[in-house]
Amino acid sequence: MRIVIALGGNALLRRGEPLTEENQRHNIAVAAASLAPITQNNALVITHGNGPQVGLLAMQSAALGPSAAYPLDVLDAETEGMVGYLIEQALDNLLPAGKRCASLLTQIEVDPADPAFQQPSKPIGPLFGEDEAKQLAEARGWHIARDGEHYRRVVASPRPLRILELGVIELLVEQCVIVICAGGGGVPTVRRRDGSLVGVEAVIDKDLASALLARTLKADALLLLTDVDAVYADWETPQARAIHHTAPQALRKLAFAPGSMAPKVEAACEFVEHTGHIAGIGRLADAGAILNGTAGTTISKLGSE
Amino acid sequence: MRIVIALGGNALLRRGEPLTEENQRHNIAVAAASLAPITQNNALVITHGNGPQVGLLAMQSAALGPSAAYPLDVLDAETEGMVGYLIEQALDNLLPAGKRCASLLTQIEVDPADPAFQQPSKPIGPLFGEDEAKQLAEARGWHIARDGEHYRRVVASPRPLRILELGVIELLVEQCVIVICAGGGGVPTVRRRDGSLVGVEAVIDKDLASALLARTLKADALLLLTDVDAVYADWETPQARAIHHTAPQALRKLAFAPGSMAPKVEAACEFVEHTGHIAGIGRLADAGAILNGTAGTTISKLGSE
Repeated sequence: MRIVIALGGNALLRRGEPLTEENQRHNIAVAAASLAPITQNNALVITHGNGPQVGLLAMQSAALGPSAAYPLDVLDAETEGMVGYLIEQALDNLLPAGKRCASLLTQIEVDPADPAFQQPSKPIGPLFGEDEAKQLAEARGWHIARDGEHYRRVVASPRPLRILELGVIELLVEQCVIVICAGGGGVPTVRRRDGSLVGVEAVIDKDLASALLARTLKADALLLLTDVDAVYADWETPQARAIHHTAPQALRKLAFAPGSMAPKVEAACEFVEHTGHIAGIGRLADAGAILNGTAGTTISKLGSE
Repeated sequence: MRIVIALGGNALLRRGEPLTEENQRHNIAVAAASLAPITQNNALVITHGNGPQVGLLAMQSAALGPSAAYPLDVLDAETEGMVGYLIEQALDNLLPAGKRCASLLTQIEVDPADPAFQQPSKPIGPLFGEDEAKQLAEARGWHIARDGEHYRRVVASPRPLRILELGVIELLVEQCVIVICAGGGGVPTVRRRDGSLVGVEAVIDKDLASALLARTLKADALLLLTDVDAVYADWETPQARAIHHTAPQALRKLAFAPGSMAPKVEAACEFVEHTGHIAGIGRLADAGAILNGTAGTTISKLGSE
């Protein structure tokens, strides 16, 4: 099977956990141990989020003064290098002999007229208390929004339209290389009037980018791995109930948290509706079990609870 | 021809120039305009330095407190993403139809017993005055060294032994993809006793990494592009004289600045001696002319002034 697997940025660097290299390496080791066994009989394409990472880099980048502060597209590219490296190194050490993997810088074209540029919604970086968040918003010109009991910076998150390196990704997959790509949802780029491409200040949702990648690569399955064990109905209520098997139609009737479960559900439904293939959502450690339908939430055209 | 072309980190972000995105994009545009015409009839593999960039990232990474400060291997990977992105985007916009390029994260194995780990010598990051450099050395535990009239941080620079992604690079080159790889000399990794690989705190010299890459890829030529127009005999003296054509034997008799021209000369000589093919050293803007032997310094087995 050809499988696109998205590793959640918040799962690689868990909510509230300090954004250290050590924590990142620890969580990535969990992901690598989960993925290595399924590399045996499948062609894997691995994507990853970068919400916490790109937000931290943006703060670090601005820390030495605004002149050296790099825009989000450049920082997105930095996180593709950083997280791609950590995943590749951890996975390489667990791969069966003869298997190899490669991390590819990925740019994704977006529409410069995408309404998302007017409505920043994608949370990035660390969690802040209300006062600190409001001070930072004022000082740095950030947009901020609530994230549970905290606040985070939010940035524009336009829809991914076209993966610029798709041909190279396809070529590597055909040659049995495990490809790590579309990190952080890919570096957002827009086409200028003269036809040339240039990066823009935004962070594409990596679940939507992964769904686009899975569709265009004609993948047999799309797995969206995160820090919760399944999609829940009535999340954060006493009636909360894990959904094990469902169909896009049923799932779309429920409401999910924007910026976290909502884009996963949308990406999974979109992939299943377009392709008739299966999508799964669940924990980083459960990749194999989700594929087997024994963990997480499986979304298929037929569904069935 | 199959050509490995190394873009100097100091040429992409010139000595003393503020380390802004704008300056970097400007210099990379010069490099892209120089390389685009020679993509027509040649298979290009492009590497780049990261001295200024990785030093800046190290300072930014430490700016918010030591807990979030990432080690040099992770920062090397970040610069591969950042600089790879900027080169790929600039070059993509100038490529003839049908040509495509890809940036690949590259790890390079080094010897954990390399004496370079005991003698930091590779200058990275911005230039400092003597007092500031000494204060930073004390506060951060840096090694520092003179660089012309200034001081810079210096880090360990072990010799590159093996390019871990070589198979994937070869595969892409065979498929006519222009590959951007071994950025910053590649991420240095060492093999642990259990056989697994892990990154180490160092910056590999990108000229030596490029020579290794050119040798193992059986390239027909190696170009080392920088911010000076040629190799000079008696540099910084009234007798300074550009060398146009020479042989490794003659070149090795001269003395060059460590950390800048010396590793280029060593890398070029090593490549020519091992392969019998041609190496060139010169300005970023002169790639085509250096290949034709009408600019820069050409090093070949026969030489001839």
